[in-house]
Amino acid sequence: MGKWLIKNGTFLTMDEKRPMIKGSMVIEDDRIKELTNQNVIDESVFSEIVDGTGKLFMPGLVNTHNHAAMSLLRGIGDDLALQVWLQEKMWPNEAKFTAQDVKWGSLLSITEMIKSGTTSFVDMYDHMDEVAKAVEEAGMRARLTRGMIALGCNDAEQNAKLQEAVQFAKDWHLQANGRITVMMAPHSPYTCPPSFIEKVVAASAELDLPVHTHMSETAKEVEDNVKEYGLRPVMHLSKLGVFDRPCIIAHGVHLTDEEIDILCSKDVRISHNPGSNLKLASGIARVPELLKAGILVSLGTDGPASNNNLDMFEEMRLAALIHKGVSGDPTAVPATEALKMGTVYGAESIWLDQVGQLKEGYKADLIALDIEQSHLYPKSDYASHVIYSASGHDVTDVWVDGKRLMKNRELLTLDEEKIRFEAQSCYDRLMAT
Amino acid sequence: MGKWLIKNGTFLTMDEKRPMIKGSMVIEDDRIKELTNQNVIDESVFSEIVDGTGKLFMPGLVNTHNHAAMSLLRGIGDDLALQVWLQEKMWPNEAKFTAQDVKWGSLLSITEMIKSGTTSFVDMYDHMDEVAKAVEEAGMRARLTRGMIALGCNDAEQNAKLQEAVQFAKDWHLQANGRITVMMAPHSPYTCPPSFIEKVVAASAELDLPVHTHMSETAKEVEDNVKEYGLRPVMHLSKLGVFDRPCIIAHGVHLTDEEIDILCSKDVRISHNPGSNLKLASGIARVPELLKAGILVSLGTDGPASNNNLDMFEEMRLAALIHKGVSGDPTAVPATEALKMGTVYGAESIWLDQVGQLKEGYKADLIALDIEQSHLYPKSDYASHVIYSASGHDVTDVWVDGKRLMKNRELLTLDEEKIRFEAQSCYDRLMAT
Ligand SMILES: [Zn+2]
Ligand SMILES: [Zn+2]
Repeated sequence: MGKWLIKNGTFLTMDEKRPMIKGSMVIEDDRIKELTNQNVIDESVFSEIVDGTGKLFMPGLVNTHNHAAMSLLRGIGDDLALQVWLQEKMWPNEAKFTAQDVKWGSLLSITEMIKSGTTSFVDMYDHMDEVAKAVEEAGMRARLTRGMIALGCNDAEQNAKLQEAVQFAKDWHLQANGRITVMMAPHSPYTCPPSFIEKVVAASAELDLPVHTHMSETAKEVEDNVKEYGLRPVMHLSKLGVFDRPCIIAHGVHLTDEEIDILCSKDVRISHNPGSNLKLASGIARVPELLKAGILVSLGTDGPASNNNLDMFEEMRLAALIHKGVSGDPTAVPATEALKMGTVYGAESIWLDQVGQLKEGYKADLIALDIEQSHLYPKSDYASHVIYSASGHDVTDVWVDGKRLMKNRELLTLDEEKIRFEAQSCYDRLMAT
Repeated sequence: MGKWLIKNGTFLTMDEKRPMIKGSMVIEDDRIKELTNQNVIDESVFSEIVDGTGKLFMPGLVNTHNHAAMSLLRGIGDDLALQVWLQEKMWPNEAKFTAQDVKWGSLLSITEMIKSGTTSFVDMYDHMDEVAKAVEEAGMRARLTRGMIALGCNDAEQNAKLQEAVQFAKDWHLQANGRITVMMAPHSPYTCPPSFIEKVVAASAELDLPVHTHMSETAKEVEDNVKEYGLRPVMHLSKLGVFDRPCIIAHGVHLTDEEIDILCSKDVRISHNPGSNLKLASGIARVPELLKAGILVSLGTDGPASNNNLDMFEEMRLAALIHKGVSGDPTAVPATEALKMGTVYGAESIWLDQVGQLKEGYKADLIALDIEQSHLYPKSDYASHVIYSASGHDVTDVWVDGKRLMKNRELLTLDEEKIRFEAQSCYDRLMAT
């Protein structure tokens, strides 16, 4: 910490005014103080000097939808129909999750995220105190939310869940030097009755927090919503006031033109989860149309049990590839746009202030990639290489809030081996019971 | 070489009779001699003992369509319409390629392939002597072919090209301890007149070699074929006798049910190239239908300029993901099937004998993955982890024909740094002229 320097670096800034800089970056406390194509003359004032030779520095990636603790269920139910997967594999096991399971599952995911260059993530789950403590310890940035499933609950049970979410917000919003922020999350229109969603909206207004929910992930969900409430999910949630709050939706796969217009006019943000949508056969979101309409689209992995990894380079690549293949237009979602979805748009989507670009005054949330590797040669276009050729494994170093979390692929804040051991123990116990 | 041992290993064999083995593997010269769940008692007879603790061993991956030297053009023309990409970016630069460019571009790709776990590949290009020499030096296994574009050539020019391809076959087929085999390759129906294709077919019969060609990659190509010859590409090539030879087709994206029936009845194999097809917006191949029809479908990266990487783990993952997303069927192309496409089917598709499984008597073409990593936890299902969570970077060691090509991510047969330097020099010269 204090004041330190990266010299001889190549910086992919995501700042449109100067996208590539070769030179030096000065970091002071949690912020980028200076970014220049000059050499810094007096190196004696720095507490640390990082030699950036052979490295590409870029903003840390932002994962806007995750259920981190589900890493414990990675690989136990693939290639199954969605309802079978949920009802036979996920829900029975998740029902057994203790606070300890959430702790170690979340930490397992956090180690994977840091090692693949993610510096900020959204998490929606249960036992959120454990997730918040894990984030605090790891040094990451996160927007956390207690995901509330209220269907089949009586009034007292519903109120208890809402109260838990409110308490979590009061306990953790703006904690850990501001790295932790909170949202309010009714899980989805199909798992929460309308009256409950209205209560969550009211609570989010009172707490001045955004709302996060799943919406229009599958065609069946949309159909069922029409059957149950006479409306497609967008009009349904709009009527319940959800979009009058700052709001980010996960998925948004099945949307009409009219629905896109509504989401746009209400400034609703969409977390696009291409890996999960493909794997669960939910469909292909209309991302080129969403971007064209001016909707803020970011990227999420969804939980590791439906992906099955948390490598945001892969989500950026999928976003750049699948919409070309499906639309037949090779200019759909170009590399630069996919890069923005993983950085600038990601940060903006979840209301992170001055995050997502390498720019003076911005938070020092950045990653370094080893570019002296065959698959990143020749040195032609780094935006292209990051999207079409790189992977999370290329990340060597990670900083959040100016603090180094990974050095040469070694985690500095967490004991990765212990976390893997404990996560495996949780898994073994879950499978044995 | 000689006789050596892997002990304490976890083996994902791709042998349906015993898919997972924990134990020992004995390799003698180029073959797997023994694979057992027992400990080998007398270790004194081995020239080397590899401790497999924390490693997953599996067959090396087989990339059935590539133009390796195009790595020199990686990143120079992305997000462009196919014709602009070809005519403005690829062809003018490829026209400048010397034998040296092909040498260093191929070596760059070979280093990338080994480092991401590919042990066998198909290459279709020009200056093929350079590619063969690179394969021989690297120690990989490859099926190589001089890709002939004959449109706009007069008879003498056409004959010269064919003669070159024939000479290449005579010089290199079954060389390098049998690691190099050859095919005959008219580039495509749209770049070769029918009379030329017939000549290639005749030569392939005379040499007793298979045929490899591009076919039905884009909708426009199919349309143009109908306009030009009154037939869709499958009937057109069938009439020219191509399918009376052992044959592997690259792409096969746009196929009717009737065409699938013909390809099946003729035992034509298809190299599915999902990354390239998505990036160039060529479309989505009908892979679930092809597999259901009983066609042998393998995976290729296509050239690194249209992918833009050679990581076969990514191609396997794309094959497993996109057909679920597009068909709406989460059981389409399950993990185990994608794994076969990258290994067993790949080897069989290009007529490699006793390659693609870890099985006694088979060639010792195998790779080791570091499974002590967060993204491969918990230890639930390794076939799932390889397809949905792993990447080429997880590969630590590679053997081909029993000989180690990579040890702990260090290449043993090639000077990676020199290759990167020379490839960059080629690129710089190409861009400057
Ligand atoms: Zn979700
Ligand atoms: Zn090709």
